[in-house]
Amino acid sequence: MKTANFADRLINEAIVKKTAVVMGLDPTPEKLPACVPGRTPAARMESFCRTLIDAAGEFVCAVKPQLAYFEAYGEEGLHAFAQTVRYARAQGIPVIADAKRGDIGTTAAAYARAFLADGDFASDAVTVNPYLGEDGIIPFRDAARENGRGIFVLVKTSNPSSGRFQDIPFPDGEPMYAHAAALVNEMGAGDIGDCGYSSVGAVVGATYPHEAEKLRRLMPHALILVPGYGAQGGTADSAAVCFDANGLGAVVNASRSIMYAYASEKYKADYSEKSFASASAAEAHAMRDAINLSLERRRVQ
Amino acid sequence: MKTANFADRLINEAIVKKTAVVMGLDPTPEKLPACVPGRTPAARMESFCRTLIDAAGEFVCAVKPQLAYFEAYGEEGLHAFAQTVRYARAQGIPVIADAKRGDIGTTAAAYARAFLADGDFASDAVTVNPYLGEDGIIPFRDAARENGRGIFVLVKTSNPSSGRFQDIPFPDGEPMYAHAAALVNEMGAGDIGDCGYSSVGAVVGATYPHEAEKLRRLMPHALILVPGYGAQGGTADSAAVCFDANGLGAVVNASRSIMYAYASEKYKADYSEKSFASASAAEAHAMRDAINLSLERRRVQ
Repeated sequence: MKTANFADRLINEAIVKKTAVVMGLDPTPEKLPACVPGRTPAARMESFCRTLIDAAGEFVCAVKPQLAYFEAYGEEGLHAFAQTVRYARAQGIPVIADAKRGDIGTTAAAYARAFLADGDFASDAVTVNPYLGEDGIIPFRDAARENGRGIFVLVKTSNPSSGRFQDIPFPDGEPMYAHAAALVNEMGAGDIGDCGYSSVGAVVGATYPHEAEKLRRLMPHALILVPGYGAQGGTADSAAVCFDANGLGAVVNASRSIMYAYASEKYKADYSEKSFASASAAEAHAMRDAINLSLERRRVQ
Repeated sequence: MKTANFADRLINEAIVKKTAVVMGLDPTPEKLPACVPGRTPAARMESFCRTLIDAAGEFVCAVKPQLAYFEAYGEEGLHAFAQTVRYARAQGIPVIADAKRGDIGTTAAAYARAFLADGDFASDAVTVNPYLGEDGIIPFRDAARENGRGIFVLVKTSNPSSGRFQDIPFPDGEPMYAHAAALVNEMGAGDIGDCGYSSVGAVVGATYPHEAEKLRRLMPHALILVPGYGAQGGTADSAAVCFDANGLGAVVNASRSIMYAYASEKYKADYSEKSFASASAAEAHAMRDAINLSLERRRVQ
């Protein structure tokens, strides 16, 4: 039996659960509610992530653990990462490892082995940096295809200084991000799933809706992973431009606004540290509905 | 007491040991000599790296373990990485963690905590990807300054497709790599050591000597880490253009040509699998002398 294309799997998940929400897992031990148990900072991170998956899993189509927060705690932190990834996948929730790896040849193949094969860190997809050109993408792309996994290539990132290089026009007048989009198309061609999307997706920040709209057109077969929603200022309407006319083709990540919802203005009257997981579930639910409403409005316009 | 500037430390090491050679540690279990002991692939990787450090340490000013090869073996692989880093530093050899990390804000700060603070993966420097602009560099730079560590920002990489983005002219006519060099200068200003170099260095491939010569001029205060020597085709003469008039300001990495020297045409008549470490030491020694000779020739011209 052919391994299912990653894009087909992720889109199916989004359709069945009626949600394009990705829950970012960026746990920082100092910021966790005091009630989160664990003997070590890493154990508390793992417990926190597991509780969030249990509480909010029904409202999300994937989770996106950020490697940095786990690496910061060394070997124990990476054990927590491995356990978190295993737990999410055991619940049937796809995992996008936000690692932003980028290297060449056998080195890139080694990273692909880490995240897109069957070891401790086996995930469904990984984020990849394009600065090194196609040499830095091909080994990841090949591993993804072979193992039914996916990659998301950084195209236009959500941060304030993303324009430093990404917005600069190349000699043809098109900004660098449009050329990164062309690389995404090139890498994804030849592995387009039944849903019309390939296993080579792109990262496009919700904080730049004008660029996002253009990039949706430029990359018709790329699943878009949209960061920057919530704490970074992106909204349901700014994320909606990354979707296709059928309301598919993108997934939207929020990390802090879901993880720490209990402490926000919106929820703090109704939730406490002890009910942090319920607040996170409420926010994932609200975000799902806000995105679905925004997509519905676009469809009827 | 002020923590010593990383550039001062590395340059001092290069002067005292009369070597600009960095030994890359990219261990692949399947390629290791059969005699390398260990119950698991990761244990064999660690044993191999330790043996190379013992044998060739006197000929190198730093070692550069490549994270990907360790991550490929999951939790055990990262234990091997932690042990390798600790072992090298215990012998007084600076460690450059080749991680090519790149992210923003608190995420970048978490990566910096992983590699530039005092945890399991505590190294002397880390390589960083500039695609996200200054947001992706500042947290690493700040952690490096605070802790007497360094960073090397990818500017012009050694791989065949590095020109895909890095060589494209921006509207001022200068290629992207020159703009990445300007970012390196901007980030390094204000923390220049006694040796004239800052804790913010750059990666410039030995495979592009024309670009390297230009980049040496454009970044007068940046230590240059030169990959691509040996197996990738870089030579002592092509690397020499990255040094200043005093024969300082750059370090040159070789990975495969040192690690697997025993199996090469040059050494296979005199060495066997069992004497792999002696062959590696001979190659590190020969590389040191070749670079010193090339630098001496440039000085007298």
